[in-house]
Amino acid sequence: MSYNIGKEMHDLCKVLFPICRSITGNGFRDSLAIINEHLPDLTTFEISSGTKCFDWEVPQEWNIKEAYIIDPFGKKLCDFNKSNLHVVGYSTPVNKDVPLDVLQNHLYSLPDQPDAIPYVTSYYNKMWGFCISDQERKTLKKGNYKVFIDSELKKGSLTYGELIINGKKEDEIFISTYLCHPSMANNELSGPVVSTFLSKWLSSISNNYTYRIIFIPETIGAIVYLSQHLDELKRKVIAGFNLTCIGDNRTYSYLSSRMGDSLADKAALHVLKHIYPDFNSYSYSERQCDLRQYGSPGVDLPVCSIMRSKYGSYPEYHTSLDNLNLVTPDGLSGGYDVMKKIIEVIERNQIYRTTVYCEPNLGKRGLYPTVSKRKSADKARPMRNILAYSDGSNSLLDIANILDTPMWQLMDYVNTLCKERLLEFEK
Amino acid sequence: MSYNIGKEMHDLCKVLFPICRSITGNGFRDSLAIINEHLPDLTTFEISSGTKCFDWEVPQEWNIKEAYIIDPFGKKLCDFNKSNLHVVGYSTPVNKDVPLDVLQNHLYSLPDQPDAIPYVTSYYNKMWGFCISDQERKTLKKGNYKVFIDSELKKGSLTYGELIINGKKEDEIFISTYLCHPSMANNELSGPVVSTFLSKWLSSISNNYTYRIIFIPETIGAIVYLSQHLDELKRKVIAGFNLTCIGDNRTYSYLSSRMGDSLADKAALHVLKHIYPDFNSYSYSERQCDLRQYGSPGVDLPVCSIMRSKYGSYPEYHTSLDNLNLVTPDGLSGGYDVMKKIIEVIERNQIYRTTVYCEPNLGKRGLYPTVSKRKSADKARPMRNILAYSDGSNSLLDIANILDTPMWQLMDYVNTLCKERLLEFEK
Amino acid sequence: MSYNIGKEMHDLCKVLFPICRSITGNGFRDSLAIINEHLPDLTTFEISSGTKCFDWEVPQEWNIKEAYIIDPFGKKLCDFNKSNLHVVGYSTPVNKDVPLDVLQNHLYSLPDQPDAIPYVTSYYNKMWGFCISDQERKTLKKGNYKVFIDSELKKGSLTYGELIINGKKEDEIFISTYLCHPSMANNELSGPVVSTFLSKWLSSISNNYTYRIIFIPETIGAIVYLSQHLDELKRKVIAGFNLTCIGDNRTYSYLSSRMGDSLADKAALHVLKHIYPDFNSYSYSERQCDLRQYGSPGVDLPVCSIMRSKYGSYPEYHTSLDNLNLVTPDGLSGGYDVMKKIIEVIERNQIYRTTVYCEPNLGKRGLYPTVSKRKSADKARPMRNILAYSDGSNSLLDIANILDTPMWQLMDYVNTLCKERLLEFEK
Repeated sequence: MSYNIGKEMHDLCKVLFPICRSITGNGFRDSLAIINEHLPDLTTFEISSGTKCFDWEVPQEWNIKEAYIIDPFGKKLCDFNKSNLHVVGYSTPVNKDVPLDVLQNHLYSLPDQPDAIPYVTSYYNKMWGFCISDQERKTLKKGNYKVFIDSELKKGSLTYGELIINGKKEDEIFISTYLCHPSMANNELSGPVVSTFLSKWLSSISNNYTYRIIFIPETIGAIVYLSQHLDELKRKVIAGFNLTCIGDNRTYSYLSSRMGDSLADKAALHVLKHIYPDFNSYSYSERQCDLRQYGSPGVDLPVCSIMRSKYGSYPEYHTSLDNLNLVTPDGLSGGYDVMKKIIEVIERNQIYRTTVYCEPNLGKRGLYPTVSKRKSADKARPMRNILAYSDGSNSLLDIANILDTPMWQLMDYVNTLCKERLLEFEK
Repeated sequence: MSYNIGKEMHDLCKVLFPICRSITGNGFRDSLAIINEHLPDLTTFEISSGTKCFDWEVPQEWNIKEAYIIDPFGKKLCDFNKSNLHVVGYSTPVNKDVPLDVLQNHLYSLPDQPDAIPYVTSYYNKMWGFCISDQERKTLKKGNYKVFIDSELKKGSLTYGELIINGKKEDEIFISTYLCHPSMANNELSGPVVSTFLSKWLSSISNNYTYRIIFIPETIGAIVYLSQHLDELKRKVIAGFNLTCIGDNRTYSYLSSRMGDSLADKAALHVLKHIYPDFNSYSYSERQCDLRQYGSPGVDLPVCSIMRSKYGSYPEYHTSLDNLNLVTPDGLSGGYDVMKKIIEVIERNQIYRTTVYCEPNLGKRGLYPTVSKRKSADKARPMRNILAYSDGSNSLLDIANILDTPMWQLMDYVNTLCKERLLEFEK
Repeated sequence: MSYNIGKEMHDLCKVLFPICRSITGNGFRDSLAIINEHLPDLTTFEISSGTKCFDWEVPQEWNIKEAYIIDPFGKKLCDFNKSNLHVVGYSTPVNKDVPLDVLQNHLYSLPDQPDAIPYVTSYYNKMWGFCISDQERKTLKKGNYKVFIDSELKKGSLTYGELIINGKKEDEIFISTYLCHPSMANNELSGPVVSTFLSKWLSSISNNYTYRIIFIPETIGAIVYLSQHLDELKRKVIAGFNLTCIGDNRTYSYLSSRMGDSLADKAALHVLKHIYPDFNSYSYSERQCDLRQYGSPGVDLPVCSIMRSKYGSYPEYHTSLDNLNLVTPDGLSGGYDVMKKIIEVIERNQIYRTTVYCEPNLGKRGLYPTVSKRKSADKARPMRNILAYSDGSNSLLDIANILDTPMWQLMDYVNTLCKERLLEFEK
């Protein structure tokens, strides 16, 4: 099961990978349409350029058809058709000849990683530019270069997708992921792909909580969404997760919400501690991604981030090396499994209360050895401890932490005790 | 003094050791009668079989006169008269011949400890059985065995003892110990014997607090007692101790109350830290004994446990090897002394308040060197620190912890300062 | 600048060093007059002998003109004119011949430091005595010694100085230092001299807070001052510092206020952690100096102590070896600089609140790179974190501690953000 899911997610990454996405435009729309095929209930929204959202406004829509450089010898360089990373995101159209020294001012490369094409954007300042591997850049000879970008910047709209999966309660678990990056895999196809498959799973089962999953462009998308839904989110969301960089195979990472002690944080820490004790833990002060918005003062949403290798911490980050070799079926399914366990922990977490004073007589219910030998009591210890700490104030997650036991190892005992009416929900 | 007490306690263990106790029956009654000789004000209570107590009811009373096995060669085995551990507690009467393979289903032994007879009971499920050393069990040959147990299970009563020692206040310190184990010494004659001698000491002095000491059968005894006294205990008890496994010589152990921060816990930790810093500290989640009842939700009594070697942690536990060589005069007197110090800490703990602003002029009262030399101030430092922290919120125990000093080393200073009217009780 | 200040402070130490100060008398008055030349707004107060102050009263005033011993061979010893430490402070007048064995009862020396003259006083018990190096004491031969002390103890007054430097707010920062020690340099000329130069600096700038700086005799001076100003101090003082032992070159030390978590403590710990991470930290229970009074119950002022080498912890303490070689220009300026930084931290500490939801668009204000490359976000990270944590509850000092950054490195960002109206004071 786990292997298949990893493979299916990796396949979806492959389909989405070549598309040139940005914070607006058809690449984003096309990608969202593909996800929509997996999630029929997903709703797409279009927000017009110029719409005010807090301190920002929705920028013009950017689309691009073609781009390249022709060198003095007629060779085509930085061909957009080979890699959409070759063009600086939101480049204005250009079509002219420039000498090498002028061209250099429009080139971006990474001397420390000579074979990587960097990922560069300029959303809010009009310019044009090309990204190139440093080793190729070094071969450029003096002469005139034709630079051609067939792009368009005009009033249009910003696109995002929203999926609501209703549960028994109005309280919500919020999952946010961003789909605005062009051909890169960990940052960022892993987030939307894992979110898609989590949504499929959530749609297939019965949930206590309502789930709100959004596929947005980073930063401006979150700000737009918050400007439209802030009151509702503050009223309903009890835990949230920003899913990003969740597809490579190297480690697990957690970045806390601003306050650090929300249910989202507690559940994430509990699962990671038991699944992968060597996970990396990051402070909110080290955040990028949309936690920048969700944790900002006045917004204050209880959102943390679960990652494999954190953005900025791995060498391939924001380059053409962040590809589908780096993101693997195992990496994706590991991220998926951890998120599923975190959700299950929140779904099943509950405050219980014992129904009798003192330890109940477990023996007469067949839950305790009737012949008392040296280690008899050990066998019923987990059950006895659940009863002992279910005082109406500790949640099951608290109890699991007190007992230093994964919460999911307590569930069978809890079910038994509820069936025996020795434990009941705290109203 | 300490040595004599140890010897006296060990002598009482010797008297009680051979008696076959159980959770009901004449063995318990006879043992309590012997303790009554030491504690004339002890009151004995009998609770009828069938009495409901929370989720439980008082079981039938069990008594036994004789038990043994005759092997195919006429040799008597598992003779109750040699060790009452040979019979499974609450065995039903039996008198018949059985082949070896049937007998084996009724035998209990410990392959890992071949020379030990295990301690086994079956209070709530009717059966019969014998306990035998594994080395003897291995010598049994095929053939017919006569099994004979002259026991009786019938409506009767459960017995317990209670001693109230009145103090100046209605607030109570609660000591609970259990007397239901047959011939074993640390678990459990040490508890009732140390409790007996603590009671003798408490009866001989003037106390601030009232003391409630109970001698009960484990589990069912505590549940019976709580079902009768819960409201009163919750209203009055400010600190309690379950005394068990307090007679061997190897270490000291502390097992916390459920909340872990009661006055009982604080006093116990303070004394153990200063008397035996290497003591073992156990979480409530590792409890056995009647802390299972005292800390249960809704009961919530501030009861912790002071032990030498904790039940379950030492190899002789619940076998015939837990004998009067394991429990020693020194072991018993060490446990007694620690409990006495803990009680003294609680008795003397108090919130004080200084009566003057600023440091008082200690010199004019002869409490500070009048000639000021380099280290003059050090001499009055403990006294000055008691004054500095007696702000009406810190108790003396808090102050001793702040100063990392045993509370008993502060008492002379406190007495002096009270006499000088520089310190007074906080009302 | 720093060097010059150190030199100027050391020069003032040199002027003050030879004067024979005590808790009352002309030496104290003369020293205060010299400080008054530096601080023209300093006001001098005289409190009559016999004035009641809490548990104490102001002692008689002591003055001394001359003192010495003539040995059997006519040699002058313990000449007050060579070192005023030779006479026990508050010695009564004497003029007689005594045999060596009687003289010995009036001599004080330090066998462990044979070349040091100890500092000894007897303020509240009338006696006379001489302090002598142990090596000189050992050369004394049998015979008659003339002892001569031309001192006077009579009704007079205790002197102290007070300087108020008004700020925008009535809330006060309190600096207390003591000037009652005769010829010793670290303990104690460093405290009053550093306090003098801090006062000069504070008088030259515009402050948010009002500053109250007092130059008092130790213990009795603080008690007198508190007895006159307790209500006012409790109402106004938000942070206070007792300056003492702040002129040697070896280390930095912090001794906490009684509660340990006042603004004074927080600011001091923040500065020392970033300036000199290896500073020594002492508990209030190890205090001497006037923290004995300021932290006493009912007084409860938020006063901690900043030192270089703590009193009692260095070998020259309270001897003639605590001289102007031990206290250096660098030592004094180091102490001065730390205190200045602490004051600046308190002056600039403030609770801010962001004015917009979500991260503001820093790019359009020129505060964020418009071209987004791999490490773009890092450049604006401090600014973004200030915004993220300015939620109306964290002070800037709290934020600096969260970010583990010196607060002074955040100030430029804060100023920029306030200018851009992205941050405002929390009312």
